[in-house]
Amino acid sequence: MGHSTDEELETKEMDVRSLSSSHRQAQSLPYMHKVGVPPKQNLFKEFTSTVKETFFADDPLRPFKDQTRSRKFVLGMQTIFPILEWGRNYSLTKFRGDLISGLTIASLCIPQDIGYAKLANLAPQYGLYSSFVPPLIYAFMGSSRDIAIGPVAVVSLLLGTLLQSEIDPSTHASEYLHLAFTATFFAGITQATLGILRLGFLIDFLSHAAIVGFMGGAAITIALQQLKGFLGIKKFTKKTDIISVMHSVWGSAHHGWNWRTIIIGASFLTFLLVAKYIGKKNKKLFWVPAIAPLISVILSTLFVYVTHAEKDGVEIVRHIEKGINPSSVNKIYFSGENLAKGFRIGVVAGMIALTEAVAIGRTFASMKDYQLDGNKEMVALGAMNVVGSMTSCYVATGSFSRSAVNYMAGCQTAVSNIIMSCVVFLTLEFITPLFKYTPNAILSAIIISAVINLIDFQAAILIWKIDKFDFIACMGAFFGVIFASVEIGLLIAVSISFAKILLQVTRPRTAILGKIPRTSVYRNIQQYPEASKVPGVLIVRIDSAIYFSNSNYIKERILRWLTDEEEETRASYMSNIQFLILEMSPVTDIDTSGIHALEELYRSLQKRDVQLVLANPGPVVIDKLHASNFANLIGEDRIFLTVADAVQACCPKLVEEEA
Amino acid sequence: MGHSTDEELETKEMDVRSLSSSHRQAQSLPYMHKVGVPPKQNLFKEFTSTVKETFFADDPLRPFKDQTRSRKFVLGMQTIFPILEWGRNYSLTKFRGDLISGLTIASLCIPQDIGYAKLANLAPQYGLYSSFVPPLIYAFMGSSRDIAIGPVAVVSLLLGTLLQSEIDPSTHASEYLHLAFTATFFAGITQATLGILRLGFLIDFLSHAAIVGFMGGAAITIALQQLKGFLGIKKFTKKTDIISVMHSVWGSAHHGWNWRTIIIGASFLTFLLVAKYIGKKNKKLFWVPAIAPLISVILSTLFVYVTHAEKDGVEIVRHIEKGINPSSVNKIYFSGENLAKGFRIGVVAGMIALTEAVAIGRTFASMKDYQLDGNKEMVALGAMNVVGSMTSCYVATGSFSRSAVNYMAGCQTAVSNIIMSCVVFLTLEFITPLFKYTPNAILSAIIISAVINLIDFQAAILIWKIDKFDFIACMGAFFGVIFASVEIGLLIAVSISFAKILLQVTRPRTAILGKIPRTSVYRNIQQYPEASKVPGVLIVRIDSAIYFSNSNYIKERILRWLTDEEEETRASYMSNIQFLILEMSPVTDIDTSGIHALEELYRSLQKRDVQLVLANPGPVVIDKLHASNFANLIGEDRIFLTVADAVQACCPKLVEEEA
Repeated sequence: MGHSTDEELETKEMDVRSLSSSHRQAQSLPYMHKVGVPPKQNLFKEFTSTVKETFFADDPLRPFKDQTRSRKFVLGMQTIFPILEWGRNYSLTKFRGDLISGLTIASLCIPQDIGYAKLANLAPQYGLYSSFVPPLIYAFMGSSRDIAIGPVAVVSLLLGTLLQSEIDPSTHASEYLHLAFTATFFAGITQATLGILRLGFLIDFLSHAAIVGFMGGAAITIALQQLKGFLGIKKFTKKTDIISVMHSVWGSAHHGWNWRTIIIGASFLTFLLVAKYIGKKNKKLFWVPAIAPLISVILSTLFVYVTHAEKDGVEIVRHIEKGINPSSVNKIYFSGENLAKGFRIGVVAGMIALTEAVAIGRTFASMKDYQLDGNKEMVALGAMNVVGSMTSCYVATGSFSRSAVNYMAGCQTAVSNIIMSCVVFLTLEFITPLFKYTPNAILSAIIISAVINLIDFQAAILIWKIDKFDFIACMGAFFGVIFASVEIGLLIAVSISFAKILLQVTRPRTAILGKIPRTSVYRNIQQYPEASKVPGVLIVRIDSAIYFSNSNYIKERILRWLTDEEEETRASYMSNIQFLILEMSPVTDIDTSGIHALEELYRSLQKRDVQLVLANPGPVVIDKLHASNFANLIGEDRIFLTVADAVQACCPKLVEEEA
Repeated sequence: MGHSTDEELETKEMDVRSLSSSHRQAQSLPYMHKVGVPPKQNLFKEFTSTVKETFFADDPLRPFKDQTRSRKFVLGMQTIFPILEWGRNYSLTKFRGDLISGLTIASLCIPQDIGYAKLANLAPQYGLYSSFVPPLIYAFMGSSRDIAIGPVAVVSLLLGTLLQSEIDPSTHASEYLHLAFTATFFAGITQATLGILRLGFLIDFLSHAAIVGFMGGAAITIALQQLKGFLGIKKFTKKTDIISVMHSVWGSAHHGWNWRTIIIGASFLTFLLVAKYIGKKNKKLFWVPAIAPLISVILSTLFVYVTHAEKDGVEIVRHIEKGINPSSVNKIYFSGENLAKGFRIGVVAGMIALTEAVAIGRTFASMKDYQLDGNKEMVALGAMNVVGSMTSCYVATGSFSRSAVNYMAGCQTAVSNIIMSCVVFLTLEFITPLFKYTPNAILSAIIISAVINLIDFQAAILIWKIDKFDFIACMGAFFGVIFASVEIGLLIAVSISFAKILLQVTRPRTAILGKIPRTSVYRNIQQYPEASKVPGVLIVRIDSAIYFSNSNYIKERILRWLTDEEEETRASYMSNIQFLILEMSPVTDIDTSGIHALEELYRSLQKRDVQLVLANPGPVVIDKLHASNFANLIGEDRIFLTVADAVQACCPKLVEEEA
């Protein structure tokens, strides 16, 4: 920076030199299609277009273009409440599909909810509450047709552990509950905010691989937690890592286990797994695994009621609050340190819930091929959780297992969610007392059989096949969750994902190109061994935008390619390199550091008297090459449309000189 | 994740479909050069090569290949102490150059050092100490020939402010000093570690633009600090932001200023600036600005000595410790909270010092065209600061102004640094007492005239021209430093730089390609308006590696291109889109999320019956397309070497159908 003046001076000198030389060269060249310079657009246009590409790539306002005000209002309402759009052409046939699928997922969700509430250290009814209000809200605001809303295992576990680390649920039950609602509230706020600010892409920073690992780990952790209910252990560790869990399991092996509980649990778990297997084998029988949980609840409850096994130490649900959600507005902390705690927990839980919901939404949207607006979806989920937090619900989101069932049961629209929530309503109003004798072992069995799906071996294997680095991220998250805790696992997942991004931007690839025989096509010689180098010319392709984060690396890498090449030619007595052609097609952008790197490269080449030639710089790049005067520095006529043109321009001179 | 099984099923079905269709297609196609699949290499090879590319791109061990052990030892010593290499063919002619330049920078550094020490709230001799030991160490270990080592303005200021915020130098002088040495020690450790672990690229995360802004801001802040000495103000704010500085300047306007001081300072500042101007105009007279500071010190000192102006309130240096660096090993905190403080400050100061030194090294290396190993350089700088911290020096690095002078004075090797440090040695031993009567105003004037160079308008203008986003980073850093503090400015610079990286990886560019008339070349139609679209075919180029961070964006962006295109064609009654050709040349890599995105894209296209065709996937990509079975999914023969081939393969079918 201090010596800019000297640099300028040098630059000027070189200008003169290169211009004269380029003048010389100009005559010997045949006409070629010139590299286009895009029409200069003013600063404001440029800025707006960039912002549009970045935050409004989906162009959400397009339908509003040139519409009457009233029409705009209608459209506005429809964007907020998609039900107004698809509701208008809702038909009886559609309803049949929704009814069946709605009933199916209801029968699946009721027992799951009761179990999941336990994972969050909450009383069973809160699970049911969370399957009543949120699905209704979502049905009006959401744009996915297949997602099934409600509490899910992973989020329940995450919420449970996070809350537990702040307040002990056993001693301070009510504070714990309040904190849970606070967290739910802020989870909703977070989700809605991300959607409104169109920062949806932030959740893309958790890579697929990381999610697979995290889910798998969480599934195992959850299953391990169920050993408490499954084996009927009284005193169980609060920790979630495998070591302390196993410790308290074996510790209580001799006195703590209850064989009746184990028999009931084991038998019904087998039943559930068999049902699941049948469903897998024959897609027609998808309903078997779907209703199996409810059946096993009913049967086991009857069994206990008849045999009064609870007297022999078989733990039962005992009591579920009757009636629908009470208000919980006044139970949310809006001040004090608990506000901060709730906020922090809410943000984390909200993000994870979002990731899961959006992943599900996208998957099914692409299966049925309808567009899903990620940001709009987030607003819907956010609103649903905010309302939920005020009606005694904890964080709800889309459930993988139930959504899959919903899809297979032939759901047509979000109406299936309405059906489900109606069933849950009836359950809350009338049936809850019947759950009194339901043994906890059954709930554990149901949860175990549910979370098994989250362990996705095929995906892990595929990841291993495709990308080793991804696999590390996946395993990192997996073992992090199992051996440390969900937070740690999450942290590992995110940080590995970020490390990958940083590597990506600091270490772009470069490739040596060669001419493919019987074509004028130049390709990576590592990929095409038959491709032949052009004598005296080194063709390097830069495979990334040139930014401050990689400009120096690129410069040095190219110089090294050149050095290697020169050694080679010297060894084989070939004519030594006189032209360095940079294939710029992949270079989408370049910043000031990039330009500086190119200038330095140019100088080094001058010293070695090698001519720098550019092939096919993109619109942005050519623009900046001109703005920075680099185009003049190397000479306008050193910039070609294609590598072929560039080589053609270089070679005749070689011939002359060799003659 | 939960429903992978269903997905598999779908995939299989599609497999069959696409295979049969591709079979149909196969006959109608002429022979074309196939897309190369690189030879499969085993996992270990793959891994090592990746690591090599990432951390050892410069291949540091190449010279060691197949050498005798003794030779290896010699080479090893030479890599650590480059002087052993270039020293062997050191000549008298070289020495002449080094002698002159050494003396020049010595005359420049002595007054600067005394001033810079003040910036770090240290006694003047510590500046001189830091110009004695570190240059010697660097001369033996460093590989840059032009860099001039010593304390520099920005780092001194940064260190001063950071230390001040921990310990008050006026009340706890000795603790402050100890903390300074501790920080220096850890600065050195940081630099050496980065070098040894080959993490040099980390400093590339501070973009050029950010540095320009930061330096400019720091320069102004430093100049403002000098107003204290320049105006002879007694009580001056400890803060560095412009507001509080200006406040205490105007506050003391009436009583606090000392007109004699101002006259002396002003007259000599004019002298310095004139000298600088002469040097700029005529490169031959570079030595004029170089020795001007020393001259003005001598003259002003004599003047004060004769007139005894110090009695009239002209602040003078008063006392500089005589003799060379005392040991300070026992003054470094290796325990207690000061260890942590020192470490934190050291890391920051070390990184900034590194950035400056490496930037200088690279610039001059590229001017004289010799390779500079960034990592080796860092080790040298680190070692020099570690030793420095044990010999009463504070953080030293390469100085822009002095390096430029060194370069222009015709330095040949690092010997010029040795010369300089010898001169400093003599100064410390014999001359320091003479500085007693040197007025502080002169030192302020010297510093002001020195830091002016750091304000680089041309660079700022260029940045504005080239990249608006960079300009924001630049201004952010600039105003951050001026109005808040150096740390804040630095923080802003780094975070804006990171934001840019994140945008880069989440929002890659895509472009619609068209055929350029009279060629078989397909280019961005925005850049080449004359390029014509192929009826019924949409050609999209993806300008980035496809990773989890951008895969969804890319998928949705492509689908939107398609929608727009279809609307257009419908409007103009053209044959509607039947083929989507993805030009993959710029796609250097793809991960699992990317593959998933492609699969989802493929399904959506199936629904709209548009055929997906790929052109020129790179080695890594084609590899993973096969590994993930996606290549079979879309059909091997839908993957072409060039867009031209792909179009040729698509169009005949169109013709048939239209006939």
